[in-house]
Amino acid sequence: MSDYDLYYWPIPFRGQLIRWVMAYAGATWAEHDAQEVIALYKDDPDSQPLPFMAPPLLHDAKADVWMSQLTAVLSYLGDTHGLMPISPADRAATVKLICDANDVLNDITRGGGEKLWTQAAWDDTGLPRLTRWMAIFEQGAEAQTSVLGRDALGLADLVNAALWHTMTTRMHMLRPVLDTHAPMIAAHADRIAALPALAEFDRQELARLGDVYCGGQIETSLRHVLNMPERTSDGPI
Amino acid sequence: MSDYDLYYWPIPFRGQLIRWVMAYAGATWAEHDAQEVIALYKDDPDSQPLPFMAPPLLHDAKADVWMSQLTAVLSYLGDTHGLMPISPADRAATVKLICDANDVLNDITRGGGEKLWTQAAWDDTGLPRLTRWMAIFEQGAEAQTSVLGRDALGLADLVNAALWHTMTTRMHMLRPVLDTHAPMIAAHADRIAALPALAEFDRQELARLGDVYCGGQIETSLRHVLNMPERTSDGPI
Repeated sequence: MSDYDLYYWPIPFRGQLIRWVMAYAGATWAEHDAQEVIALYKDDPDSQPLPFMAPPLLHDAKADVWMSQLTAVLSYLGDTHGLMPISPADRAATVKLICDANDVLNDITRGGGEKLWTQAAWDDTGLPRLTRWMAIFEQGAEAQTSVLGRDALGLADLVNAALWHTMTTRMHMLRPVLDTHAPMIAAHADRIAALPALAEFDRQELARLGDVYCGGQIETSLRHVLNMPERTSDGPI
Repeated sequence: MSDYDLYYWPIPFRGQLIRWVMAYAGATWAEHDAQEVIALYKDDPDSQPLPFMAPPLLHDAKADVWMSQLTAVLSYLGDTHGLMPISPADRAATVKLICDANDVLNDITRGGGEKLWTQAAWDDTGLPRLTRWMAIFEQGAEAQTSVLGRDALGLADLVNAALWHTMTTRMHMLRPVLDTHAPMIAAHADRIAALPALAEFDRQELARLGDVYCGGQIETSLRHVLNMPERTSDGPI
């Protein structure tokens, strides 16, 4: 039996933040396929194991705890694996970074693909907003109150690295943008991603999922505005 | 000096979840006006007191802690005022409820007013999604793992009541919808809203803000699809 069951699409995107924390903690988990995910999230709330709107959904098999919402799932893993800071201010700073990461992912897919990218939309709002997010992360990392890069690696380090490393390796045309607008964040993500457990995990994920990032038509439109080739892997969705 | 400084629009909406927690805790806070909010959030991240994308922004004056992101602000207040549960599962369930509440508010304004409501959009997606949220909250409250209505009032109780009480008093045409799809949630919200400190606070807020809910053109369009009259108060925005 695995430690966890993860119900998420077979793409990196939001799920990768959760997977990195589990991989770093040395936990095992079963990936449930898209059909199982769809069946669960289309079910009536009174039949769902935990009433929830959208994946990711995580089941802690040993404790029999179900959790949804990216921020709640990550907080739970952080608390149970000793990765969450102690003081209320540091805890909240960690939660803020997770919420910011979630918003970045929302923004780069125009609200989960509700609209597709056009070159005009990317130039006018997509890229300016993404670079502002990068500056927010960079200045946050420079602040005395930063929860990144402390002596003991914490949840914020894993989330920060999973967000930016995954984005700028799959959507690699964004790597120079990150280097320009958030060099400290880029270096931090590189450092965490080079930890043996995470480097090995990322290799496995590239083998499992190919070069897919957020999937679907929204990824096709994102690649188009970034002047990137079509996906080479047979993306699962 | 007040305990806190709140930088948010002069409307209930997201800010009201934060205000209810402070009001219940007996804390004092200064409301900063829209011009101050705009100046802060348009500022460069390296000049902001905390690099952030959008209000609400809260300053804990005594501890000199700045926090943004609704979920992080509420977690911070919950931790510092003894309103957050102890176990990782209950903590995460509280965070999940806050994230769900945040998503409800996002949905009912079509992503903060990015698009306005039309009758077709409301009938096809707005109302069905809202009633599904109501069912998710209702079933969540019925579950054994619910963090609502325990012996000691907690953060989840305040957030749940602030969300649904504020929505269904300002957008009162939604009250029968809540009664139908989430009767337990409606009763819970009534019970918490009747606590003397919160009942008195809500009276003050109606006097301060009038009947505004989310403000702007999105509120006008929401009132229209709900067959409600125009706002009677001179809404600040």
